Amino acid sequence: MYQIPRGTRDFTSSEMQKRLLVENKIRTTFKKFGYNEVQTPVFETLELFTAKSGEGIINEIYSFQDKGGRDLALRPELTAPVMRMYIDRLQMEPKPLKLFYFGNCYRYDRPQKGRYREFKQAGCELIGVDTPEGYAELISMGYKILENIGLKNIQLNIGNLNILSAMFKKLNLSEDKQKYLVPLIDKSMFEDVLVALKDFKINPNVAAEFIDILTTNDFKKISEYIKEDTTIKEEINNLNKVLDFLKNSFKIKNFNIKISIVRGLDYYKGIVFEIEAPTLGAEKQLCGGGAYELIPSFGGSQTPTSGFAIGFDRAIIALETEEYKFPVEKLDIFIIPVNEDMVNKSLEIAETLRKNLKVDIDLMRRGISKSLKYASAINAQKTIIIGLKELEEKSVTVRDMNTGKQEKILIEKLEGYLLK
Amino acid sequence: MYQIPRGTRDFTSSEMQKRLLVENKIRTTFKKFGYNEVQTPVFETLELFTAKSGEGIINEIYSFQDKGGRDLALRPELTAPVMRMYIDRLQMEPKPLKLFYFGNCYRYDRPQKGRYREFKQAGCELIGVDTPEGYAELISMGYKILENIGLKNIQLNIGNLNILSAMFKKLNLSEDKQKYLVPLIDKSMFEDVLVALKDFKINPNVAAEFIDILTTNDFKKISEYIKEDTTIKEEINNLNKVLDFLKNSFKIKNFNIKISIVRGLDYYKGIVFEIEAPTLGAEKQLCGGGAYELIPSFGGSQTPTSGFAIGFDRAIIALETEEYKFPVEKLDIFIIPVNEDMVNKSLEIAETLRKNLKVDIDLMRRGISKSLKYASAINAQKTIIIGLKELEEKSVTVRDMNTGKQEKILIEKLEGYLLK
Repeated sequence: MYQIPRGTRDFTSSEMQKRLLVENKIRTTFKKFGYNEVQTPVFETLELFTAKSGEGIINEIYSFQDKGGRDLALRPELTAPVMRMYIDRLQMEPKPLKLFYFGNCYRYDRPQKGRYREFKQAGCELIGVDTPEGYAELISMGYKILENIGLKNIQLNIGNLNILSAMFKKLNLSEDKQKYLVPLIDKSMFEDVLVALKDFKINPNVAAEFIDILTTNDFKKISEYIKEDTTIKEEINNLNKVLDFLKNSFKIKNFNIKISIVRGLDYYKGIVFEIEAPTLGAEKQLCGGGAYELIPSFGGSQTPTSGFAIGFDRAIIALETEEYKFPVEKLDIFIIPVNEDMVNKSLEIAETLRKNLKVDIDLMRRGISKSLKYASAINAQKTIIIGLKELEEKSVTVRDMNTGKQEKILIEKLEGYLLK
Repeated sequence: MYQIPRGTRDFTSSEMQKRLLVENKIRTTFKKFGYNEVQTPVFETLELFTAKSGEGIINEIYSFQDKGGRDLALRPELTAPVMRMYIDRLQMEPKPLKLFYFGNCYRYDRPQKGRYREFKQAGCELIGVDTPEGYAELISMGYKILENIGLKNIQLNIGNLNILSAMFKKLNLSEDKQKYLVPLIDKSMFEDVLVALKDFKINPNVAAEFIDILTTNDFKKISEYIKEDTTIKEEINNLNKVLDFLKNSFKIKNFNIKISIVRGLDYYKGIVFEIEAPTLGAEKQLCGGGAYELIPSFGGSQTPTSGFAIGFDRAIIALETEEYKFPVEKLDIFIIPVNEDMVNKSLEIAETLRKNLKVDIDLMRRGISKSLKYASAINAQKTIIIGLKELEEKSVTVRDMNTGKQEKILIEKLEGYLLK
């Protein structure tokens, strides 16, 4: 009769088991890197997102007025809220600040596999750091998180928006022309970039070389291409150090340079990166982030910031695609009172065993055979049958649901027997 | 510059540590009782809540239209969404179904201590059971959850809406008159109930006896009062059994009968209960629930249902009021490279130690004394100082931040030394 809203999902208990397992593994890795968990509200003032996040996001925001006439928005992403919180409450904390979080985000988007209107993100912000080792640690943490949840097949790509700017500058492309090209580059539509460059009267050889640099994985070639631009020298040196740290200190081998990474949000600058699961097709991006600038425009004091977000739902899909073996939680004990008179004692035994075990009990007075069927349906490992004759001998019958073997056990020895 | 929306909160890492600790303890207790975790979206169709939840809630709902013109609402409570999910996806599962969940809920309410516009609930539904042992297990689980998170001072009160109806019937009160009295009874405004009964031309002695029964903790007296009403006999017997199970099987001693418990939502019927933290004053209710009927009006097949919700935020406030000692998480290791040349090796050592420890590292090239100050500010247990002279001897310096004691340790023995 009532439908779930389009693009949102219910999660059954087996789905929740997977999600909590992955969430806890992500949390553990963040903590191993010295990050601390924070949380912000599900909605914020609309202004927080319209100010700096860029057109791409604004068109997809769920916004509404509260009864006081305030314009609010379900958060489409988590960086702006966490930066608002930082300015509110954390500016005086010792730097660097390493923050991580989990949260649902909302975008009014066409639902499809791996894209939902309510989706979960894990993410982090590194505040106060702009050293190569800082960026290398951040990127490697994103990589290790995905490795530690159990993914085998992931690909790290690293770009740099300042280098891309220098490339535009080399071609003397106006701001307007850059703005036209950026979405095409973001979507790797290089044929269309070529057509546009032709329209912009760029010499075909120059245009071809530009595309070549956008798509090469050869960092030396890229450095060479913009070597005349002295303003970019330090950026190049620092990126080189980041790559060295990733390879030599963090032992990450399979990463590519990919200058065509642009990122969707307008507040990124400098180094950016993405981690993909190549098996997932169009929605393959699991993690994305980089250096960004948001605090000054929010009214805080200038300080370097970087961070990333992990698409939690896609990470789960990637694990399923790789046929990751999620462990299945099982009920330890199901207790069956053979008749109504046994209920009192059965509840009491259940209560005692719950100190250490997961214990369910027949609450519907169904008798033994129906209860055994139910116990098997809900995956109980053992059943305890409680009847008058056994009770008189201070015993109960324990049945192993896998082997069908039954044993009579003294109640006083029951807990020890079950825990052994 | 940007404000957090009124009535919502940010949580810092020390607050999150408390919240996750309590959440995990609640989760553990639910699982011990054989309950399985589910999750529903943060918003639903507005209709889901306007249909049956009653006026009290509707006036406080955050509702909005999506870009497709659908009326949506941030959920004000979790029972209606979980029942929608049950009808959608779980009706064919073996009964009983034991479901639990955590979720943020939203009410446009005047913010005050213990009342927020975004608040977290933990809750559960028991589907397919209407036996006294079923209700006793449900109520005792609510009680044990609050005990298991560490609360010492809690009070369980049990009521029954069918008994209250029988009491109204005994006084021949019309539906309209009942509707007028219910909110007064709910708020324990018994003086006002007396005034109303006088207006309704009820004999003063009869009215006084009515109030006496509403406020007594003597179950026998209540049974006696409505003993002529044969339609309520079974309800009385069953409630008596519930009380017996609570006392004898679940060993809960301090509960009261309180027929004046009404509950805010219109879909409750039969047994109801509340658990309070008497220390908290006006916002003392931590847990409330009972039997209810929602599935048939949602288009599902008739089946008995009961459940409860725990006010997660208030449970935390109650623990703080009782001065519960929350454990404080600490960083295991902070690594300090003495100069830039040591960074590569320092990152590598950090990466190795992160297999088993929480490890942070200076990312700002601050030198030893500033880094030690920072390490102490973020509560690091030990620092590792990495310098050229020691590295040449394949060693590092480990400093205990509590005692100030320093030792030179061979790198190959470092992990063993730190884990011992």
